[in-house]
Amino acid sequence: MSEPRFNVLGIGNAIVDVIAPVDDAFLMSHRITKASMTLIDEERAQSLYDALPPASETSGGSAANTIAGIAALGGSAAYCGKTAKDQLGETFAHDLRAAGVTYETAPLVDGPSTARCLIAVTPDAQRSMSTYLGASSLFGPDDLDADMIKDAQITYMEGYLFDRDSAKSAFVEAAEIATAAGRQTALTLSDLFCVDRHRESFLHLVRGHIDILFANEAELMSLYQTMDFDEALTQVRKDCTFAAITRSEKGSIIISQDDAMTITAAPVDAVVDTTGAGDLYAAGLLYGLANDLPLAECGRIASVAAAEIISHYGARPQQDIRLLAGFG
Amino acid sequence: MSEPRFNVLGIGNAIVDVIAPVDDAFLMSHRITKASMTLIDEERAQSLYDALPPASETSGGSAANTIAGIAALGGSAAYCGKTAKDQLGETFAHDLRAAGVTYETAPLVDGPSTARCLIAVTPDAQRSMSTYLGASSLFGPDDLDADMIKDAQITYMEGYLFDRDSAKSAFVEAAEIATAAGRQTALTLSDLFCVDRHRESFLHLVRGHIDILFANEAELMSLYQTMDFDEALTQVRKDCTFAAITRSEKGSIIISQDDAMTITAAPVDAVVDTTGAGDLYAAGLLYGLANDLPLAECGRIASVAAAEIISHYGARPQQDIRLLAGFG
Repeated sequence: MSEPRFNVLGIGNAIVDVIAPVDDAFLMSHRITKASMTLIDEERAQSLYDALPPASETSGGSAANTIAGIAALGGSAAYCGKTAKDQLGETFAHDLRAAGVTYETAPLVDGPSTARCLIAVTPDAQRSMSTYLGASSLFGPDDLDADMIKDAQITYMEGYLFDRDSAKSAFVEAAEIATAAGRQTALTLSDLFCVDRHRESFLHLVRGHIDILFANEAELMSLYQTMDFDEALTQVRKDCTFAAITRSEKGSIIISQDDAMTITAAPVDAVVDTTGAGDLYAAGLLYGLANDLPLAECGRIASVAAAEIISHYGARPQQDIRLLAGFG
Repeated sequence: MSEPRFNVLGIGNAIVDVIAPVDDAFLMSHRITKASMTLIDEERAQSLYDALPPASETSGGSAANTIAGIAALGGSAAYCGKTAKDQLGETFAHDLRAAGVTYETAPLVDGPSTARCLIAVTPDAQRSMSTYLGASSLFGPDDLDADMIKDAQITYMEGYLFDRDSAKSAFVEAAEIATAAGRQTALTLSDLFCVDRHRESFLHLVRGHIDILFANEAELMSLYQTMDFDEALTQVRKDCTFAAITRSEKGSIIISQDDAMTITAAPVDAVVDTTGAGDLYAAGLLYGLANDLPLAECGRIASVAAAEIISHYGARPQQDIRLLAGFG
């Protein structure tokens, strides 16, 4: 088997984040569920945007953040996700390519506009996300690049994208291509409500096609429909080679076939905005796994990358995370 | 004379900032003049954007930053400036209105796109700006709202916009309307190269129409074509009621008919990005003048507002500057 061109290929919703600081009363009065992700239509996106205070725009999207993080760590990375042919789409593509990521998905012409995620950040640094998926949700099997999948050590897929049948088919097809080429597959469950909406499809995907699973405690217990965390761990060990279970400030647990390792969260002076914490954690871990680093080292890099992202607004690295991780 | 509806009306280039951290080598290799503003065409804007690292977008524009700052200080503020009917234009309008600013200029249809300013921020916190003016430079006398000008205590105009004959006419017309209504006018010289390109027009405007002038030392000395700073001060005292001369970390001098006051810069823990320092200084001073505060207090508020803006990326306030200024 030839050396793969990419450490990791990410597949997800191509989204530009619109970030604004708000107070808890804003969430209440606009019926936004705190610390979660809610899908909204274009009309609601417009009325909510009108209500938001002055905002700043940075490229986002869960898997895209992860992929940008892998590139920032010095890894080779590619991305598949759908934008529209508009200004936000150009912004998204620029930021990813400028980070060193290979990104070639054709933008959508004559359809909905590029996805945006309105992120309301409260003083406790929690982010509450209202997402208009627009063009990003029209991603389907035709947007997959089989050669790219074959050429990636790990193909990483984002649960958020799993909301439509066309994306579900694309995920299964991508996993089959990767596995047939002797590569690995990874998935993040993304969101508790997302798991609830699509539990059977997720279970089918995880059981048959996924080597590396990312989830938080609640998502994992919901996936396996158990109130017993140890039982959930036993289940996931049967289904996947690795599972990384994040627990916010308590750090994370990495499960392998014969090991379970606790990773502590890296210290942060002041937590400003937790957007992207899980995405950058995944970046660190996937970078480490793709480069055959010891599991403890993978976890350490994951924690350092997550700590950088929560120290500022936005879900793409601002500091040199290679330096922070003590590389070279 | 009735109580004006607005403390300040700003007229300037309606611009979205694209902010990216770079090193000095980037400025060199792309022939960008450090700490200055260079006008570029759309083609160069595209190629420079392609070369920039991942960026974030926030609304900008010198006078618009000032106006947003005045609103953040609790002042009543309005703005005139031209966007296109596109996504960046929507972003610009949203951010200004969400800050509490009255903004009603009709966007341009079927013309160049909304202006953007590519801001390369070096590790020394200096910003080097490459501006594609697009729709913003098509601002002309027809875009003036005479009722708004009559209803503003101070009409504040941005020298950057002064690059076209249509804008020059609009400035003179705006000043005449304001003066006839018994209101005050203010101008910022904006940029040394801008002063050089349009010295005669600036002198005509300053001598006949401006009550309050903002400039840095170099701009003022260039305007009056003198190497002697004291001579420049003598000249400006003849032409204007107030002049505020900024001197970076040395603070500023405020000149009135019978007084000259030195204002010290407020302390900042870490200077991240100097973009908007002069704009927010003007916000503080204009807010104070429009509210008849003592000159020393105007200067203090100006320094506090400028200090906030240089402590983070972007030229719009992120902290509550009313609180920082010790209001309420």
